[in-house]
Amino acid sequence: MTRVANQAEPTRVVILGGGFGGLHAAQSLRNAPVQVTLIDRANYHLFQPLLYQVATGSLSPANIAAPLRSVLRRQKNVTVLQAEVTDFDLDAKRVLLREGDSLPYDVLIVAAGATHSYFGHNEWEGLAPGLKTIEDATQIRADVLSAFERAERTDDPVARARLLTFVVVGGGPTGVELAGALSELSRHALKNDFRRIESESARIVLIDAGDRVLSGFAEELSAKAAGFLDRLDVSVRTGWLVTEITPTEVTIRHGEQTETLATETVLWAAGVLASPLANRLADATGLTVDRAGRLAVTPTLHLPGHEDIFVIGDMASCAGEAGRPLPGVAPVAIQQGQYAAKTIRRRLAAAAAGSIAKPFRYRDYGSMATVGRSAAVASIGGYHFAGYVAWLIWLFVHLMQLVSFQNRLLVLFQWAWNYVTHGRSARLITGNRHAETPAE
Amino acid sequence: MTRVANQAEPTRVVILGGGFGGLHAAQSLRNAPVQVTLIDRANYHLFQPLLYQVATGSLSPANIAAPLRSVLRRQKNVTVLQAEVTDFDLDAKRVLLREGDSLPYDVLIVAAGATHSYFGHNEWEGLAPGLKTIEDATQIRADVLSAFERAERTDDPVARARLLTFVVVGGGPTGVELAGALSELSRHALKNDFRRIESESARIVLIDAGDRVLSGFAEELSAKAAGFLDRLDVSVRTGWLVTEITPTEVTIRHGEQTETLATETVLWAAGVLASPLANRLADATGLTVDRAGRLAVTPTLHLPGHEDIFVIGDMASCAGEAGRPLPGVAPVAIQQGQYAAKTIRRRLAAAAAGSIAKPFRYRDYGSMATVGRSAAVASIGGYHFAGYVAWLIWLFVHLMQLVSFQNRLLVLFQWAWNYVTHGRSARLITGNRHAETPAE
Repeated sequence: MTRVANQAEPTRVVILGGGFGGLHAAQSLRNAPVQVTLIDRANYHLFQPLLYQVATGSLSPANIAAPLRSVLRRQKNVTVLQAEVTDFDLDAKRVLLREGDSLPYDVLIVAAGATHSYFGHNEWEGLAPGLKTIEDATQIRADVLSAFERAERTDDPVARARLLTFVVVGGGPTGVELAGALSELSRHALKNDFRRIESESARIVLIDAGDRVLSGFAEELSAKAAGFLDRLDVSVRTGWLVTEITPTEVTIRHGEQTETLATETVLWAAGVLASPLANRLADATGLTVDRAGRLAVTPTLHLPGHEDIFVIGDMASCAGEAGRPLPGVAPVAIQQGQYAAKTIRRRLAAAAAGSIAKPFRYRDYGSMATVGRSAAVASIGGYHFAGYVAWLIWLFVHLMQLVSFQNRLLVLFQWAWNYVTHGRSARLITGNRHAETPAE
Repeated sequence: MTRVANQAEPTRVVILGGGFGGLHAAQSLRNAPVQVTLIDRANYHLFQPLLYQVATGSLSPANIAAPLRSVLRRQKNVTVLQAEVTDFDLDAKRVLLREGDSLPYDVLIVAAGATHSYFGHNEWEGLAPGLKTIEDATQIRADVLSAFERAERTDDPVARARLLTFVVVGGGPTGVELAGALSELSRHALKNDFRRIESESARIVLIDAGDRVLSGFAEELSAKAAGFLDRLDVSVRTGWLVTEITPTEVTIRHGEQTETLATETVLWAAGVLASPLANRLADATGLTVDRAGRLAVTPTLHLPGHEDIFVIGDMASCAGEAGRPLPGVAPVAIQQGQYAAKTIRRRLAAAAAGSIAKPFRYRDYGSMATVGRSAAVASIGGYHFAGYVAWLIWLFVHLMQLVSFQNRLLVLFQWAWNYVTHGRSARLITGNRHAETPAE
């Protein structure tokens, strides 16, 4: 992995992360006179927007993942490396790998994404899993399905009610999608599966500290989404803050009021924290991270004073049109990846000319979230859609964004099948966490 | 879970295991005047014959698994219980569960299957995983793909050769299928994925102590299979016995000759050992298990002296036509499950008449194994097929045996896609075992 610096060699671009930002940066460097190394801990690009469908048994993990090597197979200037970056040596211009070795770069694109934030309550992590990785999704799937299995076994009505209560914390798109899917799972897919319990009696509670769900959308669409959730019997508790999570209950607070929900399944969709690599970069540069762990970047997406280090996607705090930081969504990361690649090309072409790059400008084509079958909200080019049309748009856009054509067909087939049958066939309890859980 | 014995209640049939034998026993009791409880540790029926395709990245786990509750949803006399049976109380006629409680039965059908046998070398288990569960398959998939990743990273040619050597122990259908699939994975699916290694240079070694692969088949078909393996560059070492496995090598012996193969990936497809529940039953009845851990059953498939305990499938040693025990294959288990159900029905109907049941007779429709694309062997009704026709038969038979119609379509689609593209898209490294493996 060591390489002697050599003027004749092409510029070495090292990209950290094979998510939306990193992958699109690599692809946008196709045919550029650079040597790209894309580093990711996983061997696949994951289409995170559909991860909740894995967690609720609609899709299999491989349906929403594409092996990075396959995706980039034909792009000869890219090398993929499955490894974990732990730190940076900015003086030597190297990234340090967990395995002990290091890798030199001329330009760095840092796109390592984000993880969950428990707002200082890291002890909740084991009690309220978040949804960022395939392992998270299969674990949540096992937890949810096991709760139904354990409810079926117990004779204690209190334990049964507790096992059939599912609490989702966070009313953003992921929380709304999870809550809606849990409702459909219990009311349709699992209906008649059990003999002692009625799965459709499961209680789904969605908690958000703000005053409405989908606060990133127009108020009109938030209201529509709340209506869809209500139709699915999801109990929406906006304005409530989670103050405590234990293995058997969640405590929430609204002003002076406190309430305790008995539950063994809490899913976390509330907070996002940039990859710890942002802290490593902050330490190395003397910059600071914001409350969400992000690094503020210049209008041209690099770290102030470090033109060779681009930070993009969920790790970057980048001012948008109105001065507000851009949201942590896929289109922002994709456009930033493309921008970083373009900037590198421009610099190489105009090395002598000294042209000045135009600042990054996010083109917001819209945003959307789905609540359940035939129920979604979308805001596209200033127009608002809710219901069936929004849902069709959502399906189409998400299908088209999947990286491999085979996966598009597999997902389309399973969606069509599930739509007709109300089924969810990927309902596997795998892993061993609950294998020896004593019954109540 | 406790129930007071009551003459008016229907006969309680408890089935242990939701594999081929247990599931077909339950289904054959449809509309019988019995109350069936099917107990399995997993919440799904697994189609084990295609598990090697999950381990080698062709299919997703959910494609070959069907939730037991869904399969039996409409059969109102069946209750499914996800639990682990640990022992028996034959006097009280109860099965004991790991969770501490117990369940009464009038008739017991024990169909808990088999696990791997390391022939007294249990220390090999961690070094040479076998292929029985979904967790096994995803672990093997991660191990195999990680070996390629690590080979790509290392600069040491010795380590690289070791990482690119894959040893399969056992030349039965599973071993042959695994070896063939590993060859196709390295020679086609992964081709051009790497920059420093050539995946097609991977060495696949298939070891069997006997004098030919597929020894359960006619010699002519074994020879054909060996020819197919040779075409796929699989190095077949029949007549060699494994004497030692370490994390970096396998030692094999042939008469006085010893040889050491440097490898970090050994897959175990050699020995099968009945579920430990056979030992529990042996202890409880004073019977003994055979070398493969199986219980000998009467011609009517129950334990000698215990007409209320049927043992079927891989746990039973049941004499076939020529006096040899029947092989541990799906059709045997299925027919035994159906036979046990029929016998229970007959007994209930003829409780007073005292009719004598005909002994179980296995109808052998044939057997088949696949080596790779367009290459399989089949023996059907005395006719032998090898090559393309056998492969088409194999595809058709396996597709039709999948339990859910949706899975048939999903598998068919993926097979067709993989056939055309030579691809294997379910190539995910999941789980954490190799996450922190130091590089060589």
